Parts: sequence; structure tokens; C-alpha cells
Amino acid sequence: MQKPTDVIVKITRTTICGTDLHILKGDVPAVTEGRTLGHEGVGVVEAVGSAVENFKPGDTVLVSCVTSCGKCANCKRQLYAHCADGGWILGHLIDGTQAEYVRIPHGDNSLYPVPAGADEEALVMLSDIMPTGLEIGVQAGGVKPGDTIAIVGAGPVGMSILLTAQFYSPGRIIMIDMDPSRLALARQFGATDTIQVGAEDAVARVLEMTGSLGVDVAIEAVGVPATFDICQKIVSAGGNIANVGVHGKPVELHIEELWIKNINISMGLVCTSTTPMLLKTLSSGKLDPARLVTHRFAMDDILHAYEVFGNAAREKAIKVIINA
Amino acid sequence: MQKPTDVIVKITRTTICGTDLHILKGDVPAVTEGRTLGHEGVGVVEAVGSAVENFKPGDTVLVSCVTSCGKCANCKRQLYAHCADGGWILGHLIDGTQAEYVRIPHGDNSLYPVPAGADEEALVMLSDIMPTGLEIGVQAGGVKPGDTIAIVGAGPVGMSILLTAQFYSPGRIIMIDMDPSRLALARQFGATDTIQVGAEDAVARVLEMTGSLGVDVAIEAVGVPATFDICQKIVSAGGNIANVGVHGKPVELHIEELWIKNINISMGLVCTSTTPMLLKTLSSGKLDPARLVTHRFAMDDILHAYEVFGNAAREKAIKVIINA
Amino acid sequence: MQKPTDVIVKITRTTICGTDLHILKGDVPAVTEGRTLGHEGVGVVEAVGSAVENFKPGDTVLVSCVTSCGKCANCKRQLYAHCADGGWILGHLIDGTQAEYVRIPHGDNSLYPVPAGADEEALVMLSDIMPTGLEIGVQAGGVKPGDTIAIVGAGPVGMSILLTAQFYSPGRIIMIDMDPSRLALARQFGATDTIQVGAEDAVARVLEMTGSLGVDVAIEAVGVPATFDICQKIVSAGGNIANVGVHGKPVELHIEELWIKNINISMGLVCTSTTPMLLKTLSSGKLDPARLVTHRFAMDDILHAYEVFGNAAREKAIKVIINA
Amino acid sequence: MQKPTDVIVKITRTTICGTDLHILKGDVPAVTEGRTLGHEGVGVVEAVGSAVENFKPGDTVLVSCVTSCGKCANCKRQLYAHCADGGWILGHLIDGTQAEYVRIPHGDNSLYPVPAGADEEALVMLSDIMPTGLEIGVQAGGVKPGDTIAIVGAGPVGMSILLTAQFYSPGRIIMIDMDPSRLALARQFGATDTIQVGAEDAVARVLEMTGSLGVDVAIEAVGVPATFDICQKIVSAGGNIANVGVHGKPVELHIEELWIKNINISMGLVCTSTTPMLLKTLSSGKLDPARLVTHRFAMDDILHAYEVFGNAAREKAIKVIINA
Repeated sequence: MQKPTDVIVKITRTTICGTDLHILKGDVPAVTEGRTLGHEGVGVVEAVGSAVENFKPGDTVLVSCVTSCGKCANCKRQLYAHCADGGWILGHLIDGTQAEYVRIPHGDNSLYPVPAGADEEALVMLSDIMPTGLEIGVQAGGVKPGDTIAIVGAGPVGMSILLTAQFYSPGRIIMIDMDPSRLALARQFGATDTIQVGAEDAVARVLEMTGSLGVDVAIEAVGVPATFDICQKIVSAGGNIANVGVHGKPVELHIEELWIKNINISMGLVCTSTTPMLLKTLSSGKLDPARLVTHRFAMDDILHAYEVFGNAAREKAIKVIINA
Repeated sequence: MQKPTDVIVKITRTTICGTDLHILKGDVPAVTEGRTLGHEGVGVVEAVGSAVENFKPGDTVLVSCVTSCGKCANCKRQLYAHCADGGWILGHLIDGTQAEYVRIPHGDNSLYPVPAGADEEALVMLSDIMPTGLEIGVQAGGVKPGDTIAIVGAGPVGMSILLTAQFYSPGRIIMIDMDPSRLALARQFGATDTIQVGAEDAVARVLEMTGSLGVDVAIEAVGVPATFDICQKIVSAGGNIANVGVHGKPVELHIEELWIKNINISMGLVCTSTTPMLLKTLSSGKLDPARLVTHRFAMDDILHAYEVFGNAAREKAIKVIINA
Repeated sequence: MQKPTDVIVKITRTTICGTDLHILKGDVPAVTEGRTLGHEGVGVVEAVGSAVENFKPGDTVLVSCVTSCGKCANCKRQLYAHCADGGWILGHLIDGTQAEYVRIPHGDNSLYPVPAGADEEALVMLSDIMPTGLEIGVQAGGVKPGDTIAIVGAGPVGMSILLTAQFYSPGRIIMIDMDPSRLALARQFGATDTIQVGAEDAVARVLEMTGSLGVDVAIEAVGVPATFDICQKIVSAGGNIANVGVHGKPVELHIEELWIKNINISMGLVCTSTTPMLLKTLSSGKLDPARLVTHRFAMDDILHAYEVFGNAAREKAIKVIINA
Repeated sequence: MQKPTDVIVKITRTTICGTDLHILKGDVPAVTEGRTLGHEGVGVVEAVGSAVENFKPGDTVLVSCVTSCGKCANCKRQLYAHCADGGWILGHLIDGTQAEYVRIPHGDNSLYPVPAGADEEALVMLSDIMPTGLEIGVQAGGVKPGDTIAIVGAGPVGMSILLTAQFYSPGRIIMIDMDPSRLALARQFGATDTIQVGAEDAVARVLEMTGSLGVDVAIEAVGVPATFDICQKIVSAGGNIANVGVHGKPVELHIEELWIKNINISMGLVCTSTTPMLLKTLSSGKLDPARLVTHRFAMDDILHAYEVFGNAAREKAIKVIINA
């Protein structure tokens, strides 16, 4: 306990994010030697600081991947990703959730109460991946009933977009990926069409499917120039590109063709401002994120979990659960 | 044909609206003796005026209940209900669709092309009742994923609200009506909870179900003071009341209690601006409005249809289809 | 100091609100004997609780009329008026600002830093009246560039609506009141037209001015049935009524005429979520709320201030400043 | 007259757009030899087709730069720029307004009535440049009261953005250009700060002015990679980039830095859906676009006008008016 607003949580379940793999590869230099990784998880409150009002020891809680002080200018406009004393710091600038205990700064605003006995595997998906898909993909993209949308990338984030996009009843969801087994899974999860990059020309196929109009919303869920490029070639006039992927280099924006198309391009880090909404959809059965869990490991076996998740395509892994 | 923008449609299927019953009772004095009723239907284009560009004879079309010129100030802001040369005029100020042929003014903007062979019974529901439920109930009420909403009235309009509300994945849909068989049907159509007025105190039950908070959105689908009153008593702080019912007398608004609750009350006539969206949800299978059709009659037998629809509760009728 | 999130503020300037007069008349029974009134003011931080992070002794601060914990479900959706541990409590359920010192619960979220030496009289207007006008009148009413709007009531709240409406450049602002001197002031503050109730038929005049269309936005700033009634008679099809007045009894809502007009009626208590915006408009000279200050008193002379403000029309008072 | 929806307009005043210069340089290959240029102007209706209802000979009209049929899917969603039988065609795919007469297809939806005797020079600015600034710059950028915004480019389009941005009362408007005389003019037109590119490092200056936060809205009004680049370097977290410039080549988008900043990038061709709003702000004196007119020529002298406008910086020209 460092501050009166801290909460100490005993982790019961956590998971590994694609970002954790990037950190291990050295792509995130802000992460220093010896840092405990992990920014997702469910647990039980062990202790609370003197200023904490929403939680008490014994409460079951969902850990948000984004820490929010609730009182800076950005928190007041729900832009928690850019909290002056928070944002994404767990498993990044401070120790994270892949541990027995984790300290959560600004616990009142960074944890969510959950009913004891709830489906914890499903809840772990609400720490990061579900709000990321919903906020940065679906809501920023403005998915509407009847829309034709494309999701480029059928990894965990793409699957979260696929599940949460269905909150708004798009008419057609085209999933684009290289991996036929992920595309098969996407069809089970609600994709109406799939395109296998490599085997097919994704841009040509989308234009063919849409009578050359393109899609209302193109959602990028990979983070490389080639996938961003697909999005800018398939977005319709008046449509939106929502970038969810984490990029390591610039992309060429074909503004010489797009300037006239009345489009919008959005990008950002999840704010987790939709967590209350997601908890309600979860409890009412409108969302079943546990479907993304393909593997389970004990905390002691976390190195094995990293190995499986690091070879996700080969292992047919989407999300792995680490049980305390 | 009176104007170059007219389209003559041979009706293949139409239906009866609650408004038609009101007209027969004399509640709508603007309707003069001898007027052909009906503002809903599907048909085939028989002839087009010289300025019509979107349609040609032989096209299958959906008739919108609202006529829109597409070029007045209100049409330009999608407020077709208040079109300077249109609005609700069919079966009201000009002859309507319960006939062999109907003249549709401003046909290019007041008809929608549909694929020949489409499910015409489903399409008839898109003339009025589905856009009414969606625009005036669901969208005006701002239904969001996870919301708790209440729909007061399980008649045809209430059922349309129930079906279209699900586009936005509310967590809980409480249907309130006096008729247990309609409530049973509502449960089949997606209501998560039902309250039988008469047998139960609706306001007390809703407050009990919601931990005294009330509902995020209360939708009135009857049109009498008592049902409006339920809405104002169950709406939560920060919530919305969407009035869809057609009212014949004033209501007492408890603004002395509501002024502090940060609520919104909306009301209006359908603009049918969502018809393109509804057509897409229909063709993609996200909406199945044909479920509302309980009875079918031949055009020759329309008096019988009126009798059945006029005794909807007893006849267990929701919507009746009249086939040409 | 009662809690670690409390801040003690030494008041330098405060004011009297119309609500304070209601309290004195006994209209707000929740206010108990001996309560210090006042929910507006500017001051200097005297002491802070252990969990306070945004302020330190010596800081000049603006007191918000609404207390916000920043961490309940309603605060997270910026609905501070309905904060689970706040809302309007100052000078109502706890002692207020018409005193030498005031305790501000949840100080980090309920106070705003201001530069020492700023125009404190202008700032006092930002505690309640300016955000009330902006949020509950202008923004809830959806005022847009070029709109024709009417404001019914030219008291302090009406004047705040008048000033903040101009943020959005309406084309025509019609001010309606009984008092010709207030109407003259309104013209100085930017009203393009004025109507003197009593001398003129307000509804007939507005319809005449607008070619019988009515206004895009009608804003009620009095709180009695007659003024609400004017609003419902002058709102145009597709328009909005924003109720800002505090009502003591129900109103008759003419839904039998309004149901077909596609209107919206909003009402609520200020959330002060626009305070950061108002501070920016103040510092950039886009807003000059000090124009509302007509009288100044010393704190010792507060009874006199109440007398003047209680006879505002006769005294030609809009807002009175009480200096410590 | 080619179609019953055509209107023939006798031009009284027109102007030259930067796009016309591009066409003359051969940058717009769709424009064929012998095409009459010009997509802006005011005139008097000479003749109307049989299906035209809004206009009659003798009416004074404003010509919109975008032709809208009012009845295709895009027109119905106010996306007139992508009208199936219109969009930007005047002086591009069909003969334009730099002539004695012009044929306006879909006249009912592509012309606006104006009072005879209105300020025609001001009105000419409403054909293209004012709605472009408002829709593609100000509204797409989401300018709000108190915001800090930057406009990169102080040419005619940048000046239109500057004038229309003030509809929404931003607190600070930073104008960025190379030309000190245009910057001086911008200060007269309401810019609060100016930066002279070349003499100063624009990015560094903006970050200095904003405490390193950057601007809420960065608006690009030039159309080259360097100016787009300034925008992406000065936009704040949670901010917007609105691209208004017409680009001839791709830009490098620094998504590797921007992905985490929760920003939005918009771009598009004007739809002129705000023309009714602009007409209202003009008639109420909230907008004075005639201030942009620096030179006037007779139609016979149009070659001279092109020469002056083609050397706008040297000639200190913003907009030139061509009188019939």
C-alpha cells in the first residue's frame, strides 16, 4: 500500500495479452527489467487504503487494464487512457497482474465489483480485450444496424470486435485473416463472410461482395501497414476506418484518393469507459466472452502459457486463462 | 396520375393500422367521407410520371406510410413526417392502400425498391409499424447495450418496439400490458420480464426489479394518460421517456418531481428515415417482422379483417395481412 | 475536516440564488433549522484532507454547486447531479458557502482551480448559474447556429441562458418576460427580440415572428405552469423544449397536440460537467458573466443582500455579490 | 433544358475557386476540352423544367457547388457529395457558372432561394467555400466552446474555416501560414494567435502555446504533406484532425505514435448540407463572408480575374467576384 487510494488484490485469474509478447521482445522500452507483467485479471480484495470507499476486503473485483484517478481533466471527460496519474501503467510502469497480489492505484475508479461466483473466465475478458474491441473498434467505427462491416485480423482483438459489434446488429460482418482455422471460428462467433488473405485478394473480394461500394466500417485489428492498407481500400464513401491494432511504423495514407470520400479514421487506446455497459451485457447473457478462452494454465505453469500463446496460430489459441 | 412525380402502384398486400380504427370511429375529422383508408402495403408499379427516375412499371415496391417530397426544408433534415407537400397523407388526406391501386405522390422518395419474391408479409410491416417502433420508440429513447428498458403496451406498436429494440442489445426488456396472452407472446419475441397490469402494480414491480432506480428508457405505446403516467414514475435519473402512443387528451406531467431527474421526453410521428436500415436488417435476417402477422384475409374480405383487428385482444390478433 | 477527501475553503465571495429564497420560504423541507445556506462561491483553500491531490492550502478555487465523488456510477457518466455521495448538498443537506469557511466534500472533484487574481465576481457566476444555463438550457435544448430560440424568463437564470446560448450563434433570440427593464437589459446582453408578457400575447407574437412555424428551441426559465405552457405552444415541429425552471406543481402537457410534432422535452439539475468549458470561455473572453452582477454587499450585510435580491424586480437586481 | 428537373439560371455573380486553377493546370483530367468552368454563383432563374416545384422564372437563387438529386441513398443520408446523379459536376463534368447561363440539374435540390436584393457578394461565398469550411473543417473537427484550435493555411478555405469556427466560440484560434499579410488579415477576422511558417517552427510554437498538450482540433487547409504533418504533430490526445485540403499525393501517417492518442482524422468533399444553416446565420448577421472579397471584375474581364487569383499571394487576393 503506497497511497490511501490503493487497493491490494489477490489475483484469482489472469491472462496474457499480445502486448505482453511485444514487451518480452523488447518492443516497449518503458518496461524495465524485473517488471511483473499483466494488466488483466479478476481477484479478491485483500486490503484497501484509507480513502477507498467502493471496496472492502473480500470483495470480488474485475481489474481494469487502465488506471483512472477519476479527477483529472481527462478522467472527467471519460478519457481514462490519458489519465494524468494513470492510463495503461499496470504491467508496464508498475507491477502487473501476473502475480499472486497486485497493487491497484486509484482502486475506486480502476476496479469494478463483480458478484462472487460469477464466471471469472468471462470476466477476465472484460479487463482489456472486450472494451478494446467495443470502444476502439465498434463504437469509434460507428457500427449501426444493417451495416456491412469488415474486421481485418481474427486474433483475440478481432474476435472481441466481432462479438461486441453484434451489440449493434450489423447486417454483414466480413472477417479477414490468413488463418483458415481462425476464420472458421469467426464464423461460429457470428461472422457472415470470411476472406482468407493469401488464398484470396481481400480488397477485390470485399468490393465484389459490396457491389463495388465498399464497407460502412473497416476495422483494423493487426497493426501492420498491409492490413491498414486493406482498410483504406475497402471503406465506402461516407464510411469509417477504426484502427485498433498497435502499430510499430508509419503507414502510407492515400489521402489523394480518400480526401474526397467523406471518411473518418479513428485510433486510440482503450479507456474502459464501457466496462459498466459490458458488465450489464455479460450478466444479461448478451455477451459470451468466455468463448474466446481456448487454454487454461496454473500460475506456476505460466511459462508454458506464454509459449502456447506466443504460438497462437499453431496452437489454435485465442485467449489463455492463468489460474492462481 | 396527377403530377409528373406520381407513381401508380397495384397493391399486392396491405394491412390495417390502429389509426384506421380511430378514423372509423370518427376520431380523425380530417378524413372525409368516401376516403379509401390504408397507409401500408407492398405492390407492383403500374405506371410512373414523367419525372420519376427510381422506378419503372413492374418493379416491386414497399409503400412508406409517410410521403416525402425530398426537397422541402424538413425533408432535407430527414423530418419527412413534416414534409411541406407530404407527411402522413395516405388514407388520410388522399386515398390510401386498401384498394386495388394507389397513387403515391413523390414516388421516388416515398417508395422503396424490394427484390421481387421477397417476403411480402414481412415487408408490409416496414411501411409503418417497424419504423415507428424503431424511430419513435427505440432511437428517440436512446436504447443502449445493457440497458434496462420498459415498454408499456404489447399491441402491434409495442411489439415492433420490442423487436427493433433488440438491434441495440438492451440487457433487460420489461413488457407491461393487461393481456396475459400478449405478454406470453412478448416473451417469445424477446421480452425478458413481463408485468400484467391489473394483476400487478406495474410501477411498484418495476422499481422492485430495478433496485428502486427505475429504467433507463420507458417507452409508451398505448396513448392514454394512465400509461404515460407509468412511464414518468419508472424512469430513472438520467433516463428517457419515449412516447409512441397517439394521445387524444392532455396528460399531467409531474414536472415538480421530474425537473430534478435529468430526463428527456420525446414524441413524434414516424419519419420512415430508417426504412433503408430496416430493409438491410430484414435482408440480413436480423429482423423477422413477419412474426407479428397473426391473420390473413383476401381484399374482398376486408370487412372481416377489420372486425378481427377491431377485436384484437379477443381474436389474439397482432397484425392482419390483406392479400390482393 | 470529516473525511480524507474534504477540503476546507475560506470564502472570499459568494452570492444568493433564487433557491435560497425558496428555502427561506420553507419550500425545501429537507433543509433543517440552522443550516448555513449558499452553494456558490470563490475562496482560498485553508486545509485539505489526506487523500486530496488536486489542491493545497493557498490555492484559489471555484466552488461547484454540485458535489461529485468522481467514482460512483453516475459520476462516471458525468451525471454529477445524481452522485451517490453528492449532488446538490451544499447549503441544503450540509452547511453552505454563505459563511467564513465551508467544508467541501470530495474536494478534488467538486472544486476547480482558478488563477489567483482572476475576476472573482465573474467566477462566482460559474458555481451554478452559468453551467445551469448552458447545460440544462442551451445544450439540452440543442441550440445550433442560425436557430431561432425563445427564452421564457429574464431573471438570473434566463440571463445565463441568454449569454451561454451565444456560444452556438443562434440567429434570433427572443426573450420573454413581464418586466420591461429586464427585457431592456436582455437586449443589451444579446437578445434580438423581446416580448413583454402582460402587454403582449407572447404565443401570438412568437408565431407571428416565425411565420407560424414556432421556435427551434423554447427554454423555460421560470418554473410555473403558465411559462411552461408558452413553451409548448411555441415550439416548432422537430424542435425542443428545455425546462430549466424549478417547478412546485405539475403542468398539463398537451400531448394530444404535441405527440405528432417530433419534439423533445428535457429537464434536470445542473451537473456542472461544463465547468471546464466555461472556465476556458471565461479566460478567453468569450463569456462575460460579471455583467450579471448588479449589487455588492459585505458578508456582514447579507441580510440586506437577501432583502434586495428578494425584491429583485423592484431593485433591478440580477445577481448580488457578497464579499467576505 | 435537358430534363424536367433542370433549372436554367442567368448568372449575376460568380467567382473562381482554387480548384479551377488546378483544372487549368491539367490536374483534373476528367475535365474535357471546352468545358465551361465555375461551380459557384448567384443568379436569376430564367426557365424551369416541368417537374421543378421550388422555383419559377425571376427568382433569385444561390447555386450550390454540389448537385443533389434528393432521392438516391446518399442524398437521403445528406451525403450530397456522393449523390448518384450529382455531386461535384458543375464546371467539371458539365458546364459551369462562369458563363451567362448555366443549367442546374436537379434544381429543386441544388439551388437555394434568396431574397432579391440580398448581398450577392456574400451569397457567392455560400456556394462552396463557406459550407466547405463549416462542414469539412469545423463540424467534422467537432469545434466546441473554449477549444484551442489551429488552422493550417490562411487562404480562402482557411479563412472560411476561421469565420465559421467562430459559430462555436473556440477560446483560441491559431492561424498558421507562410504569408504575413494573410496572417494579419486572419487576426482581423478573429484569429487569436498566428504563426508564420518559415520564420517560426510551427509545431514547436503550438506546443509551447498549449503547454505541450497540443490543440483540440487541427484543421488542414492546404493539401500538401508538410501541412498535414503539422496537424498530426500538434493534435492533442483525444483531439481531432480535420483535413479540408485537396491532396495530390499520399501522406505518411505516423500511426506508430498516434494509435495511442485517441484521435480522429476526417476528410471529405463538402455536401452543402449546411447551406440552410449558413443562410440563416447570414441573414441574422452572425456571418459576414463578404469580408473575403478582395477584388471585383466584369465577366468580360475574367481572364484578368484568373491572373489575379492565380497570383493570390502577390496580389493579396482572397476571393474575387466576377459580375455579369
